[in-house]
This record gives sequence, structure tokens and C-alpha cells, in this order.
Amino acid sequence: MADPSNPIKFGVIGCAKIARKLIRAITLSPNTTLTAIGSRSLSKAQNFLSENRTRIDDPSKVKVYGSYEGVVEDEGVEAVYLPVPTRLHVKWAVAAAERGKHVLVEKPVGVEVGDVEVMVEACRVNGVQFMDGTMWLHHPRTGALRGLLHDQHLFGDLRLIHSSSTFRDADEEFFKDNIRVKADLDPLGSLGDAGWYCIGAILWANNYKLPTSVTALPKVIRNDEGVILDCGASFHWEGEDNKIATFHCSFLCHESMDLTMSGSKGTITLKDFIIPYQEHSASFDFSSDVKFVDLHIGWTSTPKRVEVSTELPQEALMVQEFGRLVHNIKVLGSSPDEKWPGISIKTQLLLDAVKKSIDAGFKTITV
Amino acid sequence: MADPSNPIKFGVIGCAKIARKLIRAITLSPNTTLTAIGSRSLSKAQNFLSENRTRIDDPSKVKVYGSYEGVVEDEGVEAVYLPVPTRLHVKWAVAAAERGKHVLVEKPVGVEVGDVEVMVEACRVNGVQFMDGTMWLHHPRTGALRGLLHDQHLFGDLRLIHSSSTFRDADEEFFKDNIRVKADLDPLGSLGDAGWYCIGAILWANNYKLPTSVTALPKVIRNDEGVILDCGASFHWEGEDNKIATFHCSFLCHESMDLTMSGSKGTITLKDFIIPYQEHSASFDFSSDVKFVDLHIGWTSTPKRVEVSTELPQEALMVQEFGRLVHNIKVLGSSPDEKWPGISIKTQLLLDAVKKSIDAGFKTITV
Repeated sequence: MADPSNPIKFGVIGCAKIARKLIRAITLSPNTTLTAIGSRSLSKAQNFLSENRTRIDDPSKVKVYGSYEGVVEDEGVEAVYLPVPTRLHVKWAVAAAERGKHVLVEKPVGVEVGDVEVMVEACRVNGVQFMDGTMWLHHPRTGALRGLLHDQHLFGDLRLIHSSSTFRDADEEFFKDNIRVKADLDPLGSLGDAGWYCIGAILWANNYKLPTSVTALPKVIRNDEGVILDCGASFHWEGEDNKIATFHCSFLCHESMDLTMSGSKGTITLKDFIIPYQEHSASFDFSSDVKFVDLHIGWTSTPKRVEVSTELPQEALMVQEFGRLVHNIKVLGSSPDEKWPGISIKTQLLLDAVKKSIDAGFKTITV
Repeated sequence: MADPSNPIKFGVIGCAKIARKLIRAITLSPNTTLTAIGSRSLSKAQNFLSENRTRIDDPSKVKVYGSYEGVVEDEGVEAVYLPVPTRLHVKWAVAAAERGKHVLVEKPVGVEVGDVEVMVEACRVNGVQFMDGTMWLHHPRTGALRGLLHDQHLFGDLRLIHSSSTFRDADEEFFKDNIRVKADLDPLGSLGDAGWYCIGAILWANNYKLPTSVTALPKVIRNDEGVILDCGASFHWEGEDNKIATFHCSFLCHESMDLTMSGSKGTITLKDFIIPYQEHSASFDFSSDVKFVDLHIGWTSTPKRVEVSTELPQEALMVQEFGRLVHNIKVLGSSPDEKWPGISIKTQLLLDAVKKSIDAGFKTITV
């Protein structure tokens, strides 16, 4: 564990809404602390600090910058968190890495996998940690699921995965003004935003073994700027396992965060895999070796609900894990962990394949 | 309602396992009674009657035939139930209709839509009722769901449907000997058996509006005889609504009967839509206008579980509805109902389209 008397000092670049959640997480995590905030204007950064002062241990110690450069150049900042629009990730992640700062970047990490590779490489050559902001991977529920997925007796072989991540903002302004639907800021739309989680979950369930092929579902809805609002795809793993996965991501459907994993002997269902319904406890439904009763007039059992509690919310666990890796580099001389950047690259690689399939008229893309 | 003192007299053609459930349903339904059973040999029919005597009001009054003809020719039989292999449906449904008998046939109704049209037409010209054995459509839960689906305030516009119907028989003999995996008996395999329900549910949710196109998921698993064990597809409704639906059906996955319908304002989830977990009560989960709490650290509410109870099990309600329609024809001189045969035709039409897409290398098929 990191030394709590010497926490990793975080600078936040950009004051997006999601940054409010992350500065709280940086404060909650015992091995990190917030030291700087930068926005495009000083007043924005000041207002953000003021509005979030209750979420910060000691707001008076947080430096405020009217530019992103300010944070990157601040020698007191050891790690940066990047909630800026996707198109700005490469510039600021590389700038931070080149100044020896560790990089925690929001998803989607890049507009395409080349972006991610540039950021990861910049971190590698500068000996700093890279991680993307996928929080649910750090929830203890996810660890509990991993155990079940590998249980040959209870779950058998993974055969089928389905995931959906959808939401619909009541505010119609969302479709005009939100950065997530702006081609010049986040051109991947719902695929980059909501689809990132589905793709990541499918990869996670398959121990990050890439599928053989990716085929977009034969429909995509875009806004006037061409940004994807609604799409889906299927993934296929050729060979002995012959697994298949499907997902759907949308800005046009009511809130859902579904993940269903079907094995030869068991089924696992989550309805809130990205953001748990509640902070300190999350559940999943599990059934194993269920049959139909005689005459098929019912089932031998109903799914069992398994609760997993957590003291820290998943985003604080993510920050804590990031802080632990940074501490290992800084204090123990460890090399940066390669698992997390590898996950980011594979996720973006599949995201690219889905986009390529859509752009090619829903053709199957070999990965 | 039908006159309970003059119930519709059912003959059962074939002693498949499912027939045990249906003779119980014929007995439970207040307007029908079992009057004859036919099998390919007299001893099989006798054994079947003997094994199921507790499921029949008065077994001594049930005639037993060592042939299917016996039932069809029996002038005391008013309606037949056909649980024979799919390839035999046309022959016996037409034979029954031509003798003025009403026809309740197991699913998949035909090997292709032409089969269904032949059966439906034979029933039409002979003035008898046609219905397929899709039980879940008759559960009061299904009616409750219909109300919600049409609730603009609570559910909004239907946008996305996902369904799966999977099971895996622990007995490996299933894959060799079960009629459902025999090319000469039930050549459609999991698509005809489990996929029938998914396709039917998707149609049901769309008020039986056919999709514009059907595209099989780019993977199918077959057995040595070429019978489908595992496949899936997406359906797309072009135009203003731009709905999409996906399904997966398999003999290789643990038991699942999922149906998720996502609207612009609400989400409905069933995990047991084909066979409810229990006979006398079934539930679904519903959420409407759910948002994320401030900072997106949780949801404003969790799905609400809605229970719908039923005195009669869904298969008895199906038989009762069939009996009601037969009674109307017989006693009131009504014309046969056209809704149920129409549903069978549309379901088989889409099933054919999925198979066509698979056979064409997963190409999109215009419906």
C-alpha cells in the first residue's frame, strides 16, 4: 500500500461534470490528494473549486490554473486526470507524460486506437503509469464475478454475452450541445461513450482475448453532424469455443446498463454493471444448473441474488489502484503496470472495428 | 364463455413429452375435455394414458388408438392437438381440418411458411379454428405488459428489444436422439424450437408489424446432420421508428428465457417469459424515467417488480381460449378467429427469413 502520509498529488485538467465525481474519488482514496485544477479560464477553475469545496480535503491547498498548461507544468503535480473531450486526450496526455506525470484519462480514450497507442507509448518511454477511467472494473463485484466465470462446476464454459448501455437525456438540448454528440469533440458519440463499457465488459468476460471478427448490427442512427446516437454489434470468437457476444449502445433509450453472461452451466445477470444502483453495495443474479420441473410447468430454482459490499465507491477504488501503481513506481522503483494500458488499447481496437464495420455498410471486419 | 356441461372434445395425436402438459391443460381448462389419444402403436398410446391417468378427469372415457388416423377419423373428436415432429404437421393438420376438426399445433408450426399457409388455408376452407401452441401469449402477465408497452407516459416509444431462449440438456444423448435435433423430423433445431419464442416475442412487442429486414448474426453452430444448435439474428424496422431487435437461441447454453424491451422512457425485463418460474404467479421488472443521482454515483430508483397472478396455468388459458373460439364457431356460428393463424404465419415468415440469411452467408434479407 501507498504511504497515506505521502499521497500521490493529482492535478485535474478540465472541469467537465465527471470531474466532480473524480475529485471526490481522489479525496476518498487514502493514497491520493487533489493539488491542482486547470480550466480554459481562471474564473471557471475558481468556480469549479468553490462549487466542489466540500468534496476536497483542504481546498485552500489546491492550486487553480486558467489553462491546462498550468497543471501540466506544475512541478507539484505527480499525476493528471483528463476529463477533456476525446479529441484533446492525445495532446494533454502526451504533454503530461513528457513532464513525468502519470496519466488517468477518461473514456473513450481516443478517437481511434492510434491515439491510444501514442498516449500509452508516451507513458511507457517516460516511465509513468497509464490508466483509463473505466470505474466498474475496480468494484469488488467485478472480482466476485471473475471467480464465478472461471468456475467450471457452477458456470461451465462461457458461450454468450449480451450487454447494453443506453440512456436518454430528458433535456433535448443534450442532442445539440453536449460534447458527447459533437463531431469536433467526441466524434464517436454513443459508441465511444456508452459502447466503451459494453465492449470493455465483453472483453473482460473473455479474459481480453480478442474476437476473430466484429460485425455491426445493420442499423445506425446519427445526428445531423454524423455523430452516432445508436448502434450495436456482434463479436465472434472462431474456433473451439465459438463464443458470440452482442451489444447495443444508445442515447435514445431509457437508462440501462445490462450485462448477461451465459455459460454451459450457469447464467450471470447484472442490470447496473457500469454504475451500481447504490454506492456501497452492488448485486448480481446468478443461476446454475437450473432445469424445468416435470411437465415444464416451472423452473427448479430462481436466480440467486448475490450482494457485494464495498466501503469505498468504485471510482475511489480505481483512483486508489492508480495511486498504488504510481506509488510502486515512485517509491519502490517498479515499472509501470502494463495491464491497464493493454485493456485500453484492446477496447479501442474493437471500438474501431465496430466503427469500421458501420462505415463499410455493416460488413464483417476481421480483427 | 363456453358451456362447461358441453366441453370441446380433444383428441391428442402423438405422445411426445409435451403432450403430458397439454392433456393436463385440456383437463384444467373448464371448456375442454380429453376424449382420444393416438400413437403409432396401441401399446404406446395405452401406456401414455396409464402414465397420465391422474391428469385426466375420467381416463375410462378416453379412446386409445394405435394410429394417428384413429383420432382423425373419430367422429367424437372435435379438436386435435398435434405434438408430432414438425415435418408431420401439414399432413395431420390438413387431415384433421378436412374432417371438420379444429387444430391446435405445436411450434414450430412448419418447416417453412408455406407449410403454415397450407394448414391455415385448410382450416379456413373447412371453417375450423387454427392456433399454435405458444403458451406465454395467454398468460395474464402478457396482457399486463401490453398495457405498459402502450403507455406513452411510462414507457414512451419502443426502441430496442432483446430476447434469448437457451437451454442445455445435461443428457448428451439429447444431441443424438432428440427429435429437436433430427433433420428428418425437426430440421430447424434451436431456431424452430427456442427461436420461435424469441421471434414471436419480438413480433408481439411490435404489434405484429413485420420488420423491414432480418440479418442473422454471423455465426451458427450445427450438429453433424446440419441441424442448427445455436444462432441469432437482428431485426430492423426502417422508417420513423427505426426500432431494432436482437435474439439468440441455443441448445448449448444454460437455461434462459429473457425478454428486454427498452423504450424512450422505460424498460421492461422478463427472465422467464416462455415458462414462468412458478405456475400461479409471474413477474416482470419495470423502470420508468430513471436517472442517475448527482455525480452519477447511483440511480434515482431501482426497477420495480410487478407480480401477476393467474388461477389457471398459461397452457390451460391457451386451451381455454382455443375452446372459446371453437365454441363460438360450433354454437354461435362465428367465423374462425383470424388473429391466431396470422400470428403463426408471421412468426414462421421471420423464422424463414433468419434461416435464409444464415444460408446466404448472413446477408441481410428484406422482408
